[in-house]
Amino acid sequence: MSSSAQKEKAAQFRQWHQQPPLLTLPNAWDAASARIFELAGFRAIATTSSGVAAALGYHDGQQMSREMMIEAVARIARTVECPVTADIEAGYGNSIAEVVQTIKAIIATGVVGFNIEDSSKQGQKALVDLAYQVELIVALRELAAALDVPFVINARVDIFLLAIGEPEHQFEEAVRRANAYLQAGADCVYPIGMLASDVIAKLVRAIDGPVNILGGPPMPTLPELEQMGVARVSLAGGLARSVLGHLRSVAHELLEHGTYTTMSAESLSSAEFRSLFDR
Amino acid sequence: MSSSAQKEKAAQFRQWHQQPPLLTLPNAWDAASARIFELAGFRAIATTSSGVAAALGYHDGQQMSREMMIEAVARIARTVECPVTADIEAGYGNSIAEVVQTIKAIIATGVVGFNIEDSSKQGQKALVDLAYQVELIVALRELAAALDVPFVINARVDIFLLAIGEPEHQFEEAVRRANAYLQAGADCVYPIGMLASDVIAKLVRAIDGPVNILGGPPMPTLPELEQMGVARVSLAGGLARSVLGHLRSVAHELLEHGTYTTMSAESLSSAEFRSLFDR
Repeated sequence: MSSSAQKEKAAQFRQWHQQPPLLTLPNAWDAASARIFELAGFRAIATTSSGVAAALGYHDGQQMSREMMIEAVARIARTVECPVTADIEAGYGNSIAEVVQTIKAIIATGVVGFNIEDSSKQGQKALVDLAYQVELIVALRELAAALDVPFVINARVDIFLLAIGEPEHQFEEAVRRANAYLQAGADCVYPIGMLASDVIAKLVRAIDGPVNILGGPPMPTLPELEQMGVARVSLAGGLARSVLGHLRSVAHELLEHGTYTTMSAESLSSAEFRSLFDR
Repeated sequence: MSSSAQKEKAAQFRQWHQQPPLLTLPNAWDAASARIFELAGFRAIATTSSGVAAALGYHDGQQMSREMMIEAVARIARTVECPVTADIEAGYGNSIAEVVQTIKAIIATGVVGFNIEDSSKQGQKALVDLAYQVELIVALRELAAALDVPFVINARVDIFLLAIGEPEHQFEEAVRRANAYLQAGADCVYPIGMLASDVIAKLVRAIDGPVNILGGPPMPTLPELEQMGVARVSLAGGLARSVLGHLRSVAHELLEHGTYTTMSAESLSSAEFRSLFDR
């Protein structure tokens, strides 16, 4: 992709965070899933680290190598024309300098945004220091300026996911962190977790910028989330789980009955499959 | 994998071709799909070149590189413990020596068998010369002896798939080639195509060894194929097509209604997904 095309795509993607309609991002794990989403009509596509890891035979949580993750994102980014944002977990690095190197490599694949987690990847249920994360986001914003690509930084707020402390503390700390990340240069914040509707609505009111919420069952529907003022929804590994669950149903029918009802119910035709990457 | 473990697995896999029950091979395209099949209880797993190619963003037909194909097979082979047989199309080589190199690399991933096509990959709808294919299969059998791994050679007979000549000619040529390939050292032959039941039954009678038939709609069910004397069934890209079609349905519901009914109907739970690779 030319740098001007990437710049333009990034600017458009960023703009979609700033006003309705809700930006719904399906999470791809390989080139085929990304292409299905693009053909279905999504405006932009995210990746899912858990889905990418599973496709390659790894558990989630930076178990695959940094290079594997980057190659997987690159395969998705070169397959679709719409904006792609990458789930790079905590950035596959032990220092700000190392994470900046990851982001440089990720931006070189053609993506126009990424998530960055504030979970510690040291094997404990803990968040990194707020000061560290703020410094990291400042460095990434400076990188965007230096590269002249206005990529979208979606700063994850992992306190609900990790369930650290009492609910009231979680909410206050989430808001404090979210606003600090926005202040540092994040374009959107993502308090990930299975949140109740009233918590989501309160978060959107208390956070001074675009909020990404996790969608998928048992969360509110997309129209409900839009109604609450949510700017962006992503499905995390939910779509990969859905597909693997369908495959399990197909497998069970083959083994138990030797028939093809589940297999054929929603299947792409051979012709559709053969032309999946045609333009 | 130790070479003795691979040898034992190959011997068992080969033995399953020689007597009932029908050997049903689901075709995986990545580590996650392979693991779903293993957990469901299939005895062995095949790969699908079209599915592997799509996951990586390529059309089928040796469009991805030889290295990409080998790496994809390796990811599957190291994920599951059951026997794996690889779809390596025509062997990614322009000579017998080059195809032998591909097979050496494929066997080194731990698989215990592979398909080898008799389609010409020169861009025309044509079969390679029978003499060439026989010489290739003899060379591969010699390689098995040299490596001391009794890998299963499944020799594809592509005349029905390519629809070359009149139906009567297709049948005769398929039988002639199938028996020549078995004579040369193939363990099983695979006249791939959408075949009518009476043609399948006639093929099984006319071919002097185990026959692999393409399953999946609109083909006969697995019990029907077993009844006809078929030794082995595989689904080619049918399972990848099924999964991508399901994903398309999920995507359409998200876009049109913003709801999660299709997404959640058969889904793996988060806990099942997180433990997919646990043993």
